[in-house]
Amino acid sequence: MANPTAAMLVIGDEILSGRTRDANMHYLAGQLTTRGIDLKEVRVVSDDRDAIVAAVKALSAGYAHVFTSGGIGPTHDDITADSIAAAFGVGIGVRDDARALLQAHYARAGQVLNEARLRMARIPDGATLIENPVSTAPGFTLGNVHVLAGVPSVFQAMVASILPMLTGGAPLLSRTLCLMRGEGDLAGPLGTFAANHPSLSVGSYPFQKDGIYGSNIVVRGMDAGELDAAMTELERLLAA
Amino acid sequence: MANPTAAMLVIGDEILSGRTRDANMHYLAGQLTTRGIDLKEVRVVSDDRDAIVAAVKALSAGYAHVFTSGGIGPTHDDITADSIAAAFGVGIGVRDDARALLQAHYARAGQVLNEARLRMARIPDGATLIENPVSTAPGFTLGNVHVLAGVPSVFQAMVASILPMLTGGAPLLSRTLCLMRGEGDLAGPLGTFAANHPSLSVGSYPFQKDGIYGSNIVVRGMDAGELDAAMTELERLLAA
Repeated sequence: MANPTAAMLVIGDEILSGRTRDANMHYLAGQLTTRGIDLKEVRVVSDDRDAIVAAVKALSAGYAHVFTSGGIGPTHDDITADSIAAAFGVGIGVRDDARALLQAHYARAGQVLNEARLRMARIPDGATLIENPVSTAPGFTLGNVHVLAGVPSVFQAMVASILPMLTGGAPLLSRTLCLMRGEGDLAGPLGTFAANHPSLSVGSYPFQKDGIYGSNIVVRGMDAGELDAAMTELERLLAA
Repeated sequence: MANPTAAMLVIGDEILSGRTRDANMHYLAGQLTTRGIDLKEVRVVSDDRDAIVAAVKALSAGYAHVFTSGGIGPTHDDITADSIAAAFGVGIGVRDDARALLQAHYARAGQVLNEARLRMARIPDGATLIENPVSTAPGFTLGNVHVLAGVPSVFQAMVASILPMLTGGAPLLSRTLCLMRGEGDLAGPLGTFAANHPSLSVGSYPFQKDGIYGSNIVVRGMDAGELDAAMTELERLLAA
């Protein structure tokens, strides 16, 4: 049987202007190859509704899977979700489950879920959410189009959320530990932890906030009990 | 007046499989932005004639300029030139001026212009050659499509050859000095040379051949006499 085919759509003026060098294409290409999915085409378009709609329609009709990257943040030029809804001819609005995720996330962070952030809960009708263990705001799947964030660490975490669903593997559960410490401090104990838990996948996604370095440690596995026990161990290990 | 628009077509299975990370898109994006040309879309397709033809037709019709990258080497899977000819409905064959360039190049290198290398002189009817000061085998322009090599150093040198033609600047002349020494040896005197000749553009393109490091030094300028004098100085400087 031939491998399933895929295309990628990278959305963002910052790539086309040369300000930012895209990293997601190369990452996705490697992941899909590993999973036996053939990436056949990539397009990069600007933050322009007509351009996004045209590309989504063409790629969605031509390939088994389409992955998009970028344009799902809180600012006015993040028009990917609306453009995907338009491409499929469905409505879009703030969805309760997505809003609840964001509400809990910002409450934990002591921040307000303002109008701009609430934009990230706008989901096209009929879509399925894609888990974002790094920064919570979800991606989504509509039809055969998987809509992911543009920030590389979030993109990569979302790829890990969605890929097992496409290749018949068991869905992975995830737990996230957010620490206000840089990766350099954590790398040693984290390596030991990963080596002691070969059945779990351990990822570290660094960030910077108000000038302070932090890391989201995302642990994935198939067994909820094993995951919970591992997270307790990890917290103890990294609190040291 | 609005800026002219452009699109890029990256051709190559090695990008889509994740084996190679594309570097040309980011480079071209930066160059076009500097020159006031708006890069509006990029597509990446595999070494597949139908895919290349379809993309060339769509992009050529939609944008003022199209730049392609990859698939113009000597091997059987280098099908870009034939695909471009097919997209424009014109013939293709070995062209005398391109053959003469390659003949002189391989004669200098003491190598044979065999059947495979001669493939690189296949140029669609009606095309204009694009100079390749790094490795000789030329690119070409057909209609509004500029066909460039995939190897980043050659791609960059070809971009420098073609861009002034598109933006109304005076065409640049070039001289190339090929040295079997690594860049590390040359960087010091080359920096001094470049500083002493602010009206010339000086580029260094390293390569490896039979395990030995070499560099092509490409010097560009508008005045042939100035260039020739500068090359004599450069040879004396780097022979030391």
